[in-house]
Amino acid sequence: MNAEIIAIGDELLIGQVIDTNSGWIGKELNLVGIDVNRSHNVRDRRQEILKTLSESFSRVDLVLMTGGLGPTKDDITKHTLCEYFESDLQMNEDVLGRIRAFFEGRGIKLLEGNIQQAMLPSKCRVVENLLGTASGMWFEKDGKHLISMPGVPHEMKGMMEKVILPELKRKFTGHEILHRTILTFGIGESMLAHKIENWENDITDQGIKLAYLPAPGMVRLRLTIHGSNREEMSNLLQKAETAVLPIIRDYIYGYDDQTLGQIVGQLLKANASSLSLAESCTGGYISHLITSVAGSSSYFRGSIVPYLVEIKAKTGMAHQETLDRFGAVSEETAKEMALGIRELTGSTFSISTTGIAGPDGGTEDNPVGTIWVGIAGPDGVRATRHTFGKNRERNIQMAAQAALFSLRKEIIDTFAQD
Amino acid sequence: MNAEIIAIGDELLIGQVIDTNSGWIGKELNLVGIDVNRSHNVRDRRQEILKTLSESFSRVDLVLMTGGLGPTKDDITKHTLCEYFESDLQMNEDVLGRIRAFFEGRGIKLLEGNIQQAMLPSKCRVVENLLGTASGMWFEKDGKHLISMPGVPHEMKGMMEKVILPELKRKFTGHEILHRTILTFGIGESMLAHKIENWENDITDQGIKLAYLPAPGMVRLRLTIHGSNREEMSNLLQKAETAVLPIIRDYIYGYDDQTLGQIVGQLLKANASSLSLAESCTGGYISHLITSVAGSSSYFRGSIVPYLVEIKAKTGMAHQETLDRFGAVSEETAKEMALGIRELTGSTFSISTTGIAGPDGGTEDNPVGTIWVGIAGPDGVRATRHTFGKNRERNIQMAAQAALFSLRKEIIDTFAQD
Repeated sequence: MNAEIIAIGDELLIGQVIDTNSGWIGKELNLVGIDVNRSHNVRDRRQEILKTLSESFSRVDLVLMTGGLGPTKDDITKHTLCEYFESDLQMNEDVLGRIRAFFEGRGIKLLEGNIQQAMLPSKCRVVENLLGTASGMWFEKDGKHLISMPGVPHEMKGMMEKVILPELKRKFTGHEILHRTILTFGIGESMLAHKIENWENDITDQGIKLAYLPAPGMVRLRLTIHGSNREEMSNLLQKAETAVLPIIRDYIYGYDDQTLGQIVGQLLKANASSLSLAESCTGGYISHLITSVAGSSSYFRGSIVPYLVEIKAKTGMAHQETLDRFGAVSEETAKEMALGIRELTGSTFSISTTGIAGPDGGTEDNPVGTIWVGIAGPDGVRATRHTFGKNRERNIQMAAQAALFSLRKEIIDTFAQD
Repeated sequence: MNAEIIAIGDELLIGQVIDTNSGWIGKELNLVGIDVNRSHNVRDRRQEILKTLSESFSRVDLVLMTGGLGPTKDDITKHTLCEYFESDLQMNEDVLGRIRAFFEGRGIKLLEGNIQQAMLPSKCRVVENLLGTASGMWFEKDGKHLISMPGVPHEMKGMMEKVILPELKRKFTGHEILHRTILTFGIGESMLAHKIENWENDITDQGIKLAYLPAPGMVRLRLTIHGSNREEMSNLLQKAETAVLPIIRDYIYGYDDQTLGQIVGQLLKANASSLSLAESCTGGYISHLITSVAGSSSYFRGSIVPYLVEIKAKTGMAHQETLDRFGAVSEETAKEMALGIRELTGSTFSISTTGIAGPDGGTEDNPVGTIWVGIAGPDGVRATRHTFGKNRERNIQMAAQAALFSLRKEIIDTFAQD
């Protein structure tokens, strides 16, 4: 089964809003065995929507659409779909009741625009929106399916998870697609490809497709297999994964959609350990990556972001003498910060960062992009100097990922020795 | 002038990588007066690329393409473009020299895959990549332009900014497009539409298109105008902006692409003030938003993320007695945290957050989504209770935005009184 995705909205084409919906929908469709052929961003113009829709239906039988269902004047999807499916709009009393209840529950006045949202095409099946006021619409005609959903991500996701995906799975089964992604850190794409060349040839012969997906500091290797026997396919992927492990073991840190924040969290939990951070140049970003994970309060004690040099001394993250003698961006300061926060919070492990994120502030000894990462744990403390580029955002990201990758290794090594 | 964008890669369609390139390209093309008609994500299959390309060229004369140019086996864009434009591949010695220098400069071994990247179509103009090894390619045939760029965002952006955008601007001028976006916070889309209904009708009559772009806690109003007289268009936008101000003044916090982190930063700088943070439930996210802004070290002193309750007392962010009596999630604790970090760092203003981000940990009095935000400044301290939803990520975002919005108001009020 193949599908296409159409995301509607001028804001997507002028880059004011990044379309994250289409990617999410693609991923979920894949999990129920539906392949996404293409996805499109189109303007909220009647003619553009109609054209894209009929083009997509010339290629596939299932189209998922997001956007253009809000209560305001710039939304035209509903009227356009009525035209395409030759339907009229009727007041849906059930939906109106839900919209009323939605506003009453929040103590907000119901407005004309919201009432209009209950006017729905008579020829579609209405998909309930539990998280907002724009209903989903499922049209079916001559074996072609069109599912229209609101563009607000959490409303769209709620609808997909509760109603649409389970039903698509029931309706369209047979062909299976499996993916497995191997996450690597600290090796470039070319060198990685060179190391695993023979393995890549072997798995290609077995019908496994390999893709390299680079991101700051890391390369993800995605393995994809198509077929009808899920167990057999899963075994082939498992074999491929096992075969590559000895070749690039030192670079692999996880699998599939795991983040370094989650991986480190699981390791800390499994080893009844805790973490604290003294983040200078990363400015709270590592704390954010750690605390984005649900349940992180069971292993994360806290952090200090001593952004100003004086605050480093004032919070006990570094001695004034060390700062004077070696400077804030130095191995000594990085180590003291890691030790300082570890002692203050009593955590098992700690990370520190200190450096120059840029774009300004570099010196001859420490050009922009110089970042020290310290790691302290039961086995002592060490610090590593990194030299990244000139882009502030990228430097913060790279330093955070490098720090979490080092911490992962430190936790594993610490408990392997015991 | 109209253009289309094609982003290539299976990873985009299965949602493993979110395509941020197309949005960025759309925004930049708009700024030089080129309208993006549609954008597409397609698989890295020869046939799919060829079909999408000829369809796009049936609608527009300019197509920008990203992705599929890496050194590894999964990249096929180059060969497909040769087929489409009936070109062969030739070794480009200049490019080979640059690739060699790129690897030598980094002390990495040059591999066969990298050498192959210097094999380029003879019929295209090569666009130099200063940040990587995959060259851009600019094809021109019968008045149709195809520009192919690597998918790595910073490499693509470097090429666009240095070569492609200036040249497109020279080649295709005439029609102008202007946008102005008004950023509002704390008012829902329906209520906002209701309040500005008359204004919206007025500006529509003047040829200004209005779009509502909701995001967590905020709605952006985008005004768009097309024409040929830039000054006249700019005046019309200015007039529209001035006219809406008295109607929704309290909700407007900024314009265009400003972030609350930037806006707060500018206000602090303009008033020679500084900031510190005591973030509990937001876990470092506000610090990250503040420190993402270049130059933030001139007003940001630092923060403490006392995630564990004991760390709140240990770092002096709250008294043990207050925690025992009122609990960690309380007005009293929020106020003490704001005062505590302000005193420790000596900053002009401070923010505190304490609450239950979820998905677990709620109580009857403080269900998941309960978050206190404290603000301290020269005029004293206050705390506000927010009740968000059950989604952890969203709660962290909403709390951070609400905190920065309150801080903005506090800074403005403080200095207005003087």
